[in-house]
Amino acid sequence: LKGEIITIGNELLSGLVTDINATFIAERLSSFGIEPLYITTVGDDESRIGQSLKAAVIRADVIVVTGGLGPTPDDITSKAIAKALEKRLVLFPEALDQIEIKLKKRGIKLGPGSERQALLPKGSTIIKNPVGTAPGYKISQDGKFIFVLPGVPKEMKVMIDQGVLPILSEEAKQKIFVAKKVLKVFGLTESQVYERVKNISYNKELMQVGFLPVFPENFITITARVEDSMESAEGLVRGVEEKMRGVLGERVFGEDDETLEMVVAGMLITKGLKLAVSESCTGGLLSKRLTDLPGSSTYFERGVVSYSNEAKSSLIGVDQTLIQTKGAVSTGVAKAMALGIKKNAKVDIGVSITGIAGPSGGTEEKPVGTVFIALAFNENRSSSQKKEEIVISQGYAFPGDRESIRLISSEMALEWIRRYLLGGKITEVGERWRAIGAVDI
Amino acid sequence: LKGEIITIGNELLSGLVTDINATFIAERLSSFGIEPLYITTVGDDESRIGQSLKAAVIRADVIVVTGGLGPTPDDITSKAIAKALEKRLVLFPEALDQIEIKLKKRGIKLGPGSERQALLPKGSTIIKNPVGTAPGYKISQDGKFIFVLPGVPKEMKVMIDQGVLPILSEEAKQKIFVAKKVLKVFGLTESQVYERVKNISYNKELMQVGFLPVFPENFITITARVEDSMESAEGLVRGVEEKMRGVLGERVFGEDDETLEMVVAGMLITKGLKLAVSESCTGGLLSKRLTDLPGSSTYFERGVVSYSNEAKSSLIGVDQTLIQTKGAVSTGVAKAMALGIKKNAKVDIGVSITGIAGPSGGTEEKPVGTVFIALAFNENRSSSQKKEEIVISQGYAFPGDRESIRLISSEMALEWIRRYLLGGKITEVGERWRAIGAVDI
Repeated sequence: LKGEIITIGNELLSGLVTDINATFIAERLSSFGIEPLYITTVGDDESRIGQSLKAAVIRADVIVVTGGLGPTPDDITSKAIAKALEKRLVLFPEALDQIEIKLKKRGIKLGPGSERQALLPKGSTIIKNPVGTAPGYKISQDGKFIFVLPGVPKEMKVMIDQGVLPILSEEAKQKIFVAKKVLKVFGLTESQVYERVKNISYNKELMQVGFLPVFPENFITITARVEDSMESAEGLVRGVEEKMRGVLGERVFGEDDETLEMVVAGMLITKGLKLAVSESCTGGLLSKRLTDLPGSSTYFERGVVSYSNEAKSSLIGVDQTLIQTKGAVSTGVAKAMALGIKKNAKVDIGVSITGIAGPSGGTEEKPVGTVFIALAFNENRSSSQKKEEIVISQGYAFPGDRESIRLISSEMALEWIRRYLLGGKITEVGERWRAIGAVDI
Repeated sequence: LKGEIITIGNELLSGLVTDINATFIAERLSSFGIEPLYITTVGDDESRIGQSLKAAVIRADVIVVTGGLGPTPDDITSKAIAKALEKRLVLFPEALDQIEIKLKKRGIKLGPGSERQALLPKGSTIIKNPVGTAPGYKISQDGKFIFVLPGVPKEMKVMIDQGVLPILSEEAKQKIFVAKKVLKVFGLTESQVYERVKNISYNKELMQVGFLPVFPENFITITARVEDSMESAEGLVRGVEEKMRGVLGERVFGEDDETLEMVVAGMLITKGLKLAVSESCTGGLLSKRLTDLPGSSTYFERGVVSYSNEAKSSLIGVDQTLIQTKGAVSTGVAKAMALGIKKNAKVDIGVSITGIAGPSGGTEEKPVGTVFIALAFNENRSSSQKKEEIVISQGYAFPGDRESIRLISSEMALEWIRRYLLGGKITEVGERWRAIGAVDI
């Protein structure tokens, strides 16, 4: 089954609003086994709405249209659809009732705009809108299904899940089973990822493999579409996934909706460890990412944004002489920051970032993008049971603008924590980025 | 001039990635005076890329295509374009040189994938990619311009601004002058904004006014399109802008690309003031936003993410008894945090946030969304020249999920700083949100 999505609204064509509806509908249709082939966006224009719909009816089996069902005069989607399909607009009393009930709850009376919202193409089946006033509807043409939904994301999403998908489920004669997996990699370029996995074979008729850079990460997508069963689709995906994990190893940090911070959080919780953060150039970003998740107080004790030199010494006890001699951006200061926050916060792991995010502040010796990361932790030495405190540090020359440098720096620090928790060699992380500076354990 | 945008990538049709490129290109084209009529999204499929391009060449004067120029085998955009336009793919040595230089800097050798990236349709003019490896290009067909750019947003954006728009500027014969202004408001709902400005009149033939909620802010867009001159377009916009500012007053915090943090930073720099932040539930987000900007060390001294109660007392001297009696989420603790960070950092302004971002941790008395903000500063009392330290605090019941609550909380704290710097009454900020808790100055 082929799908097509048409999103309508002048605000999408002027660049004021990003089309998040198309993303959602595309995800739902493709997970259902309907492959979206085209997404078309047009303004509130009768002729262009009509032409897009006519093209879609020829190309696809299921068409989802959103936007332009509101009560204001620029909402002309239903009129355009009726014209394109050569159907009359008729008043649906059921739709009008639903609008009236909704408005009454808000203390608003039915106006002429609302009455226009109840005029739908003849032969439509209403799709209830549990959130807002605009009703949606289903209409068939040449054996194809057209679903028309409002453009307000909150309304559209519920109507897809509670209205459209159940109808499609009922109507589907021949089911298609779709299994998907996204593998997430950090530290390799898209080409490096590809080079490592390119010899892994898969059934190209039933499966697709894609590579997608999502800075600073790289995603690999594995999709299988089969007709027999979900188990079969999942089996195909699992087969390829396992081979890829085999060659990529620890470089795969997560899958599907997992973020790097989620993975790190999970590992910290499992191991019962707490950490604290001392960051300068990232200005709170690392702490923010580590606390994005519910329940982060389980593993996150505190963070300090030690922006000034004075803050570095008073908050985490970094020696001012060290800052004067080595510079605030140095292996030595990074180590002192990691050790200091670990000690002050009385936690298992101390992480630090100090660097130059730019655009100014760079020197010839330490240009913009110079960033030092350090990790302090306790390790059992084999000879005795006494725990020894260890701190490691590494400098990087990160490319890009301020935003990129801050993002990679926080990502790299998270990856260090992950590698440490995995028991891996941390300073070898991320061959994609150029390492600089002394490394000593 | 009519525009059209074609975005290419399986990840857009599977719903894995939202198409932010189309938004950016649409904004740039329409600001330039080219009206985008269609945005079409297709997968990495030769035939559908070709068909979309053929349709676009008939309908539009300027076509921008993005995506599918990478080094992996699923990058087939150039091949599809060459076929659709009936041109040969030829090796552009200049393009290959640029790729090689970029790779060399990263210590990577030229591979076969990179060589494919330098194969472009015959007759193309290269558009340099200052960020990544994939070159872009311009190609003409039937007097229409087709611009082909990589899909990585950072690369595409620079190439639009530095490559595409300058070419269009040179080629444009009949100019249309477009002036735009976005006014940004915080603290009012979309309806509240609309009610206040709805009686302001403007020339509806030449101008458009739009309202757009961009959580937690609201934008008003004012656009004028005229044929005579840029001054005339700007004059029309300025007229409406001034009337709107007249009724909205201090509620307009910024315009166009300005963010609230940018406005606050500008005011702090002008006044020569420094601040420090103590935050709990926002986990570093407020510090991160305040340091997003270049030169933030001028006004930002330090931040602490005092997540644990122990961190609250050791980092900023909050009395543990106060935390025990009033709770960590309380006016008292918020005040102590703001005063403590102001004192420790020796700055002019101390800001604090303590709250419950959820989803867990709420109680009947203090449900999820309960957030206290406090601001500590020095004020000259009229009777003497002696500066007096003042701290104010306010609680809020913010709605939404964890992410929303963290975002509104950081936004509200920034707005407090802005109102303080403006000399306004801070605790009246944001009638949109329900204020709770004691207010005392």
